[in-house]
Amino acid sequence: MSKYIAVVAITIDGKIAKNSHHFSNWTCKEDKDFLHTILDTCETVLVGNSTYKMALKPLSKRNCIVLTRSFKLKNLPLLTYCNPAIESLKDTIKKNKYKKICVLGGTQIYSYCLEQNLINELYLTIEPLTFGPGLSLFETKKTSQWRLKSSKRLNKRGSVLLHYIKI
Amino acid sequence: MSKYIAVVAITIDGKIAKNSHHFSNWTCKEDKDFLHTILDTCETVLVGNSTYKMALKPLSKRNCIVLTRSFKLKNLPLLTYCNPAIESLKDTIKKNKYKKICVLGGTQIYSYCLEQNLINELYLTIEPLTFGPGLSLFETKKTSQWRLKSSKRLNKRGSVLLHYIKI
Repeated sequence: MSKYIAVVAITIDGKIAKNSHHFSNWTCKEDKDFLHTILDTCETVLVGNSTYKMALKPLSKRNCIVLTRSFKLKNLPLLTYCNPAIESLKDTIKKNKYKKICVLGGTQIYSYCLEQNLINELYLTIEPLTFGPGLSLFETKKTSQWRLKSSKRLNKRGSVLLHYIKI
Repeated sequence: MSKYIAVVAITIDGKIAKNSHHFSNWTCKEDKDFLHTILDTCETVLVGNSTYKMALKPLSKRNCIVLTRSFKLKNLPLLTYCNPAIESLKDTIKKNKYKKICVLGGTQIYSYCLEQNLINELYLTIEPLTFGPGLSLFETKKTSQWRLKSSKRLNKRGSVLLHYIKI
């Protein structure tokens, strides 16, 4: 069975970005290092169109599935589009025999995966900032239960990495 | 100088409640114990009208300042109303010689205090739940910087208490 791992950087007040054009240049070096390490252990990255376009340079070097209702926009060697209204994401994953999938956002993708029961683990880096208004992690109208597997302080300022298992 | 300490229980996805009528019955025993301990060290509790009414029984036993634009609704011995449009909250605190104030929410009160530079410390208990839509911690349209002083796992399931200092 495939394992879906959501990786998220978030502020103290639970925001993953100020808006959909806000690039994640507010995360610490240690979080970026962790992200690269976990990406290296995954066979593919699952993202939305905005996230893919925003991080085109690093993501175009990796196997990516862009979950979108739009028509295909780019034709890149490592890029697969999946329109969940037409074909099942699970089938796309199965066809490619991916065992470990990194779910990288944004809000709609995290929410879709949570709704479809396609998040098994969640790595959450809490950066010591607050944004106020912004994008939340999930839009799913359902309370979900998790268990904390481990926590780690990443640096002196106090970025914290929490690892949760979905229960 | 008075010290303002915000105490918050929040979900993994950054929500302090599902809506303004949602009572905080989803927090763990260890968080409630911590809340009582910190309340005992503070001379007054600063809340909004909804939060006060929702937790009337425990809060009516403590010195409380209800920050509100409405007319006074109740006349209770330990209760003070403060309408920040008419009198300054700082003056109310000064007049009463309060040195340590516990800021207990909800969103509007946390946001008002952050805007007015009236949060010195923040205790954040992250409960291992996600709500999806709900009330955020801050509405203030300003990025604020914090430093993590300490973190503590509260129980087996993995509620985490983070203590931040505003910088």
